[in-house]
Amino acid sequence: MADKQFVYFFGEGTKDMKKLLGGKGANLSEMTNIGLPVPPGFTITTETCNLFYELGKKWPEGLWEQVLSNLAKLENKMGMKFNDLVNPLLVSVRSGSAVSMPGMMDTVLNLGLNDKTVQALIKKTGNERFAWDAYRRFIQMFGDVVMEVKHEKFEHALTSMKKKKGVKVDTELTAADLKELVDEYKKIVMDEKGVSFPQDAKEQLKMAMNAVFDSWNNNRAISYRNLYDIPHSLGTAVNVQSMVFGNMGNDSGTGVAFTRNPSTGENKQDGEYLLNAQGEDVVAGIRTPLTIDNLKKDMPKIYDQLMDIFKTLENHYKDMQDIEFTFQEGTLYMLQTRTGKRTAASAIRVAVDMFKEGLIDKKTAVLRVEPDQLDQILHKRLDPKEKEKAKVIAKGLPASPGAAVGKVVFHAADAVKEAKDGFKVILVRTETSPEDIEGMATAQGILTARGGMTSHAAVVARGMGKCCVAGAEAIKVFEKSDYFTVGGIRINKDEWITLDGGTGEVFLGQMPVVDPELSGSFGEFMEWVDTFRKLGVRTNADTPKDAEVARNFGAEGIGLTRTEHMFFEASRIKAFRKMIVAKDEESRREALMTILPFQKQDFIGIFKAMEGLPVTIRLLDPPLHEFLPSEDKDIAEIAKELDITFEELKSIVVSLHEINPMMGHRGCRLPITHPEILEMQTRAIIEAAIELTKKGVVVKPEIMIPVVGILNEVKLLKKQIVQIADALIKKNNVKLDYKVGTMIEVPRACLTADEIATEAEFFSFGTNDLTQLTFAFSRDDSGKFLPDYIKKGILEKDPFATLDQVGVGELIKIAVAKGRATNKDLKVGICGEHGGDPASVEWCHKNSFNYVSCSPYRVPIARLAAAHAAIKEKTGEIFRDK
Amino acid sequence: MADKQFVYFFGEGTKDMKKLLGGKGANLSEMTNIGLPVPPGFTITTETCNLFYELGKKWPEGLWEQVLSNLAKLENKMGMKFNDLVNPLLVSVRSGSAVSMPGMMDTVLNLGLNDKTVQALIKKTGNERFAWDAYRRFIQMFGDVVMEVKHEKFEHALTSMKKKKGVKVDTELTAADLKELVDEYKKIVMDEKGVSFPQDAKEQLKMAMNAVFDSWNNNRAISYRNLYDIPHSLGTAVNVQSMVFGNMGNDSGTGVAFTRNPSTGENKQDGEYLLNAQGEDVVAGIRTPLTIDNLKKDMPKIYDQLMDIFKTLENHYKDMQDIEFTFQEGTLYMLQTRTGKRTAASAIRVAVDMFKEGLIDKKTAVLRVEPDQLDQILHKRLDPKEKEKAKVIAKGLPASPGAAVGKVVFHAADAVKEAKDGFKVILVRTETSPEDIEGMATAQGILTARGGMTSHAAVVARGMGKCCVAGAEAIKVFEKSDYFTVGGIRINKDEWITLDGGTGEVFLGQMPVVDPELSGSFGEFMEWVDTFRKLGVRTNADTPKDAEVARNFGAEGIGLTRTEHMFFEASRIKAFRKMIVAKDEESRREALMTILPFQKQDFIGIFKAMEGLPVTIRLLDPPLHEFLPSEDKDIAEIAKELDITFEELKSIVVSLHEINPMMGHRGCRLPITHPEILEMQTRAIIEAAIELTKKGVVVKPEIMIPVVGILNEVKLLKKQIVQIADALIKKNNVKLDYKVGTMIEVPRACLTADEIATEAEFFSFGTNDLTQLTFAFSRDDSGKFLPDYIKKGILEKDPFATLDQVGVGELIKIAVAKGRATNKDLKVGICGEHGGDPASVEWCHKNSFNYVSCSPYRVPIARLAAAHAAIKEKTGEIFRDK
Repeated sequence: MADKQFVYFFGEGTKDMKKLLGGKGANLSEMTNIGLPVPPGFTITTETCNLFYELGKKWPEGLWEQVLSNLAKLENKMGMKFNDLVNPLLVSVRSGSAVSMPGMMDTVLNLGLNDKTVQALIKKTGNERFAWDAYRRFIQMFGDVVMEVKHEKFEHALTSMKKKKGVKVDTELTAADLKELVDEYKKIVMDEKGVSFPQDAKEQLKMAMNAVFDSWNNNRAISYRNLYDIPHSLGTAVNVQSMVFGNMGNDSGTGVAFTRNPSTGENKQDGEYLLNAQGEDVVAGIRTPLTIDNLKKDMPKIYDQLMDIFKTLENHYKDMQDIEFTFQEGTLYMLQTRTGKRTAASAIRVAVDMFKEGLIDKKTAVLRVEPDQLDQILHKRLDPKEKEKAKVIAKGLPASPGAAVGKVVFHAADAVKEAKDGFKVILVRTETSPEDIEGMATAQGILTARGGMTSHAAVVARGMGKCCVAGAEAIKVFEKSDYFTVGGIRINKDEWITLDGGTGEVFLGQMPVVDPELSGSFGEFMEWVDTFRKLGVRTNADTPKDAEVARNFGAEGIGLTRTEHMFFEASRIKAFRKMIVAKDEESRREALMTILPFQKQDFIGIFKAMEGLPVTIRLLDPPLHEFLPSEDKDIAEIAKELDITFEELKSIVVSLHEINPMMGHRGCRLPITHPEILEMQTRAIIEAAIELTKKGVVVKPEIMIPVVGILNEVKLLKKQIVQIADALIKKNNVKLDYKVGTMIEVPRACLTADEIATEAEFFSFGTNDLTQLTFAFSRDDSGKFLPDYIKKGILEKDPFATLDQVGVGELIKIAVAKGRATNKDLKVGICGEHGGDPASVEWCHKNSFNYVSCSPYRVPIARLAAAHAAIKEKTGEIFRDK
Repeated sequence: MADKQFVYFFGEGTKDMKKLLGGKGANLSEMTNIGLPVPPGFTITTETCNLFYELGKKWPEGLWEQVLSNLAKLENKMGMKFNDLVNPLLVSVRSGSAVSMPGMMDTVLNLGLNDKTVQALIKKTGNERFAWDAYRRFIQMFGDVVMEVKHEKFEHALTSMKKKKGVKVDTELTAADLKELVDEYKKIVMDEKGVSFPQDAKEQLKMAMNAVFDSWNNNRAISYRNLYDIPHSLGTAVNVQSMVFGNMGNDSGTGVAFTRNPSTGENKQDGEYLLNAQGEDVVAGIRTPLTIDNLKKDMPKIYDQLMDIFKTLENHYKDMQDIEFTFQEGTLYMLQTRTGKRTAASAIRVAVDMFKEGLIDKKTAVLRVEPDQLDQILHKRLDPKEKEKAKVIAKGLPASPGAAVGKVVFHAADAVKEAKDGFKVILVRTETSPEDIEGMATAQGILTARGGMTSHAAVVARGMGKCCVAGAEAIKVFEKSDYFTVGGIRINKDEWITLDGGTGEVFLGQMPVVDPELSGSFGEFMEWVDTFRKLGVRTNADTPKDAEVARNFGAEGIGLTRTEHMFFEASRIKAFRKMIVAKDEESRREALMTILPFQKQDFIGIFKAMEGLPVTIRLLDPPLHEFLPSEDKDIAEIAKELDITFEELKSIVVSLHEINPMMGHRGCRLPITHPEILEMQTRAIIEAAIELTKKGVVVKPEIMIPVVGILNEVKLLKKQIVQIADALIKKNNVKLDYKVGTMIEVPRACLTADEIATEAEFFSFGTNDLTQLTFAFSRDDSGKFLPDYIKKGILEKDPFATLDQVGVGELIKIAVAKGRATNKDLKVGICGEHGGDPASVEWCHKNSFNYVSCSPYRVPIARLAAAHAAIKEKTGEIFRDK
């Protein structure tokens, strides 16, 4: 172990050694190598940190020797020495892991100062105040970060000193004041920790290194890694770098900058700096930094040099950089460079521009934008600055992105009414049901107290591209009394609230909203995306409007049209209810016939919007009780409407009640007991298709049977569908191709897919229900325990948001393999919410799906995710599953 | 095809050719071969019938030629000829498939009679009346069965004739009357069918053969096969046999007999006969047949000959036979022999006796009793004779066998109260819930309107060995008003009803019940059974009493103890409710501590009853809301009891409400959010085990975690269990081995069984829930469509009664293979209701399970089924699945 290289001098590493040297260390080496002015120093590897823990918080043999020899090299290079009374070496010590973890550990600056070297610094700089201030800052930082003295103690002493001296800001304190403060600080350390402040620079370095290692596993760091899925095994590096000072007068300064604009992507540097300041002064916010442009005037030489360096960096790194710099007495030093974080708009523009500038190829440009980021540019957002100040009253699941501001209403009917009166409203409910559709459509946003990422509210809202916060369990909704409570506050009808669907936050009052804008580069970028993509991308759309939106976003057809929503419109619900309460088949048929023309018009609209593209229509899916009221008051009212007695309707409602409706009388089980529903729907679909075909419109209907688990279900229903469809086609003498397939959402369908595929022409995996059944997690109820599951690490992710590849994925693989074994032409797609989740899209690509289908606003995301998967397969980063 | 043998002369076949010749044909050949007096004839094969259908109801080439040549052989043998004017050949034509299908097609007797041969018959027999009666009967049978003339027409003519002649019974009609009737019958045929009655015997035979072929697919036959799971591909044979006449005077006669007693198994023939009669006269019931014993006096020679034949048959067939015989003018003929159907008691006695007589070996004896039959001797039954007369008011599922008579009550509390007052009651509910346990225990039987074979009522009743009819959907129960209605009748509280749990029938009033009796052979027989069995058989038992019953029935341990029922006892439910409504962990813990001593006593009782055998205890499984009331009235009452406000309790009830409780906050999800429940239960189990161990009682606890789907669930909970258990064992300084395993009932657990088996020491498949989730069939709700599924042939069997091998079985196979791959010592069992179903037990044997576990009263059935499977594996009839 002693021959292992624990320490790399800047220049010994490269930018590709992030894992070993951390991001900061690797890039300091890289910049050194390409000749940029980096203050010399060395990096202790992340492996060392891991060894430190393996050895029970002990140093591996040979580490100190390697540190000492690199220190000697540094002293030699700088012509300075630790503890030297003439030319003392001062260093900064910083942590730095492979993945940036801001705020994990504060930086220690000016290490090497002590009671003697401070005198040397005075002599060398001729600036007594500067030296005492540096020493004072060092004790404060080291005391806090390394020795764990409460920082309030130091702050209190500083405040007292200012009071005593009658000054307001630190800079007004004199050298003598600061010297006095150093004494007080040292006394604080002695009082708090029972030891004197370490005077030997090597001792200081040892302690600082230990502190950095320790910081890797402090609570803050562990939580951060859990939150952002960062492996705990990475470890942190320690960077020891010779100090440069931005606070040595007006020819010194410090700043940060992006090589391009991180908000817009404009090809112009963006940053700020302060003269005569250290990095922490910029952060402290006492003085207002200037924009980089001003540097041209203030320090033209430095400015020009910086611009050259930016070019060099971009040419070298082939990406927009986020850098830190300091200049000391007219000399520029680079302290950090890393890939700059950016908004989606910026990411797209930078990618497109850099391709055009010849910096990167198209493949790289496409990989530069994260699919999930696109949500930002497709939806309204809250103004980030205003958000910081606002009061969050509750937090739910970020069920559908965007922002919404409106007056609270508790009933769909109220939403419709108030919207008609010109008010913006937010519909708040314990949970939504299909009856609420119209209210949801007119509301600005939806807030529910119950339900997960695939609850009714969430799915419908995403389909509509409407902001939704779901499952905010802290909220108690009293629909009947028109108010909700949360954390002791009561919010009445017509009070204003604001939702952030991207974070799940709920705010009291009205907040300013920023509209989305699709930059000019978006269209061009998405065209490139499609040149790489292998996987088809369709949309889930229930209306012509949704279909149009999705087509504009690049959808190549519809993967799922849910027909149940069509029954809830006022003009139809009555007829449908008449069907449900009818005593015999004939009256059921009669009631359905009044819906047929409406349903046909629905399909005509959707087929037109998707002309030439396939449209998958799912037959009626939900249990019939969802179409009937449950409260006695409503039963009475609707019984009157239907011209039957309260008792009759009540008895039907009771007999239709189900204990577990998710596994009840729904899906294909409806047409098996009520064939007339299927007949009506098949007629509506095929008649609509025929009518358009006659007008020359190309229509490709795909009829999908839901909740299938048994071959004979498909056999029986397909026979009925084909009989009706073929008779109509023959009668009308048109050429019309249609397909009949099944939604695969029941585990048994997967396990017997070889049988089912002999009848089905396509499989569309309904991964919402498949996830429910495979886990036995009711999506309506799992909110009671799923948060605990994530918190306790039982599950890494919500399986309703990202496909569970190990369990549900395994079942789907079985189904695809079995299905294709008996039907090699079987088309395979996914139409659950996972169709719009990038990780799940990649999985579908790996498993040779034909397409994914997602809500309209996620179509661009799915397209990009599919392109990423295809590119990654080409570069060997991922492989097809066997 | 023309070289195929379509026709076998009696004697050309053997008893093992049932598939080809049908049961009747094969045995007629066999009897011919062993020298018994069988009237000669031939059999047209079942293959011919299948070919007939394949050819679109046409005869295969060569068939008629083969029939003709066999007919010639028959004529030759008999010295008689078709259409002969001196010695005309008359034959019977009968269907006969491989599996007996009584009533599928009536027999045609006396074929060959026509206007001329009837005269020859007169001359030959000198009995004019006999000949005209034979012709008359032939036209009637042939007209009805072959020509499809409505049989009422003939009956009407016969009745008119009797009226006209002023006589009461057929036998009073003279030869002249019958001759006149023949003319009328022929006229009826002409009027109805427009053709004259066929006069050519060969033509008659052709038509009769076609009629038999056709009859294979008449509605009655198809329904019968669907009902009894008989493959439609079997086809029927046609038996053409020369006629013998039992109605040729007082030295002629006909009868049926069993070689041993089919009710008791006593080794003494049992049967009846009529002198001067044909088979149909016995059936018609005009004359009362005599028991076989009387034949000794009437026809001693025939009697002796018959007794010899019985011996011969039993020695040859090695089983009890059910035979038909006729004697004509002092000569005995055998018309049929087949294996005799028998009661369970008879089956056991015959098997044991025949082994002792040296007729069969033990293996054969064990195979002679069908596992399902044992239900008969373990439960009360309705007197079969009384049952025939009684009025069935409803039919539900035969959820738990036995019979029950009692006064109707609608509330568990009423059941308890009335039982205390000495009344027998039947608890009638829409569905039962755990709250009803005590009422169910005191009731004679349970009747529910909703729920399937694994509904709460069904499962609990079977566990208690109590009669239950579940899911009688025609019944509407009005619990609040204390009555139920069915088919227009209203049955009030305290009215008497009777249930047959073996058929699902519900009767009005009180009916006599027969107590079960275990014959002397039962114990001996079951000992033999266990010498063959490889599969372990455990029981599902929640109380010491159930455990004892099961142990007496041969259970080798407990496969499932449900702990939730223990919480419903009055003394505990309050404490448990206090736990649920507690605001913090401490009060929850406090409430649970008051239950601990009770729970510990439960386990002590069960451990004692199962001393030395493994006892698998499942941790609390149901969602917490099952322990709270749902009606406002009850909420108010219980809130008072718990010393909280109505609003508080109501709000808890509302917050615990679940849309799909089956997939909600239950099973291992409870201890993950409420670790203190698991702590209390682990302590109760281990403390009970320690207390007994100290007294020298050998205890083998197996702690089972329910509803597992994710490795980390098991990891987390097992760690907690082991910590508590090991600490207690160490503190008490005893040696106690215990296991921790999981119930496998969630599809994801099967799919990730390789992961889960690294932590679990055993898998116990909970096939009830696994079936629910794999099919997405809620067992509480599937009653709405499952009957349609069976009726329409979508499913052959209720998957809750018999394991669905294709779907659910596939998932279990995946789980077993994966689980044993990472844990070769993994114990695998099944504890769903399928553990007591013979077909499912065989499947478990084939898949190398370690054990099955079933309700106490099904333990003997499972033992026998397991023995059958082991024997069948040895004989190569079944194979282990790979």
